[in-house]
Amino acid sequence: MSGRVTVIGLGPGDSRLLTEAASEALARAEDLIGYIPYVARVPEREGLRRHASDNRVEVDRARHALELAASGRRVAVVSGGDPGVFAMAAALFEAVERGDPAWARLDIVIEPGITAMLAAAARVGAPLGGDFCALSLSDNLKPWEVVTARLEAVLRADFVVALYNPISSARPWQLGAALELAAGIRPQETPVIFARAVTRPDESIRVLTLAQAREAPADMATLVILGASGTRLIPRGEGVSPFVYTSRSVARGAA
Amino acid sequence: MSGRVTVIGLGPGDSRLLTEAASEALARAEDLIGYIPYVARVPEREGLRRHASDNRVEVDRARHALELAASGRRVAVVSGGDPGVFAMAAALFEAVERGDPAWARLDIVIEPGITAMLAAAARVGAPLGGDFCALSLSDNLKPWEVVTARLEAVLRADFVVALYNPISSARPWQLGAALELAAGIRPQETPVIFARAVTRPDESIRVLTLAQAREAPADMATLVILGASGTRLIPRGEGVSPFVYTSRSVARGAA
Repeated sequence: MSGRVTVIGLGPGDSRLLTEAASEALARAEDLIGYIPYVARVPEREGLRRHASDNRVEVDRARHALELAASGRRVAVVSGGDPGVFAMAAALFEAVERGDPAWARLDIVIEPGITAMLAAAARVGAPLGGDFCALSLSDNLKPWEVVTARLEAVLRADFVVALYNPISSARPWQLGAALELAAGIRPQETPVIFARAVTRPDESIRVLTLAQAREAPADMATLVILGASGTRLIPRGEGVSPFVYTSRSVARGAA
Repeated sequence: MSGRVTVIGLGPGDSRLLTEAASEALARAEDLIGYIPYVARVPEREGLRRHASDNRVEVDRARHALELAASGRRVAVVSGGDPGVFAMAAALFEAVERGDPAWARLDIVIEPGITAMLAAAARVGAPLGGDFCALSLSDNLKPWEVVTARLEAVLRADFVVALYNPISSARPWQLGAALELAAGIRPQETPVIFARAVTRPDESIRVLTLAQAREAPADMATLVILGASGTRLIPRGEGVSPFVYTSRSVARGAA
């Protein structure tokens, strides 16, 4: 088999945040597979067949990519952010494991990208400057009790926490519940960042307190970063959002 | 003040993993500041002053960058991986907070990069496919008891864990202690990845079991990923390293 699947991280939105390796892999592809808005980010060109699909069909999409590659095509599966972080790469390997045994011998390459928490953090300063976790609030694939047990564990251990998939029309209350849990463990003035559509034309970034965050709107395009005890604000003057960073140092007895 | 500091993520090593935005920021810089091997990655050019410094002087380096920017220079501070993940961005904001109040009004931009855990994960499959944490094993800036308390918390909550700064000549035993702690909580056959110098000419990536990892050598350039209960191997045939991925799904009662 001469086909190949490359799973490509498109980063948060701005094409200037693609790596050169990701751009090269897109240029070499014959078939382009992905969720509609990600496929739409890739310019049309001669010789590139486009297969855009709706959300929530990750494993079907992965199987389609593997079938095309097994037939000899050079396939690019596009993913927002980094493909390995709550995105297409794990779905692809699930399909490999459950599918045609020959698929495990295909040439499968993952091209990393700038995941949302890195892009959001860069926009406000360095809130991930200490130890941190990435936790998906979606309970589509794991029980909600697992989500809350994990969140409570890392809040108590004083990690900064990036919350992916905080809310959707089908999951309207999970973010509120998570922030309520956080408010029982962390001070009300803890910095919380709501970073929406980072680097895209409709970007909106808010630096809030935990108390304010509990009243603030969010949507599917929002990434939430909950600060830890070492997360601090540096005021920058009137009308300018403060820098937010987490100190690298932890005092003795702080944990 | 017309100066600017841009803290630039160079990614894991291969220049093809820089973002276009990072490359552009390097091209605009007048002064280049950073740890010797990172400065060495940036080609020399006319008009670029190079200020390479030894490791462990992050805050001095940050102050130097801020002073130059305050005098009107366009300064690039270069960092391996992503500047916001155990790298220069937090040190820069520490210097801003403690330094000349005018520094908080400087134009400070963070250009994100591919951090080591994303690059390492991409090389083997999708081991960060579920919830995960990034934890520095260095006890230079935090007490060792904080490191172990955090590690134990996230192991018990079944996160995948990326261990940064696992070992150095001054910290020879910490990785062994961390793996011993892990072995008390996770099964001996748990997949563990030792990813050394990812994307660089001397790259070496080993997929081990937790039992094997406890006997395996590591050095400063190694990034360790400890699998969780959902981390699985997909064999690829004789002489080829298996794919490693973490399932997106968590069964009820698994936490």
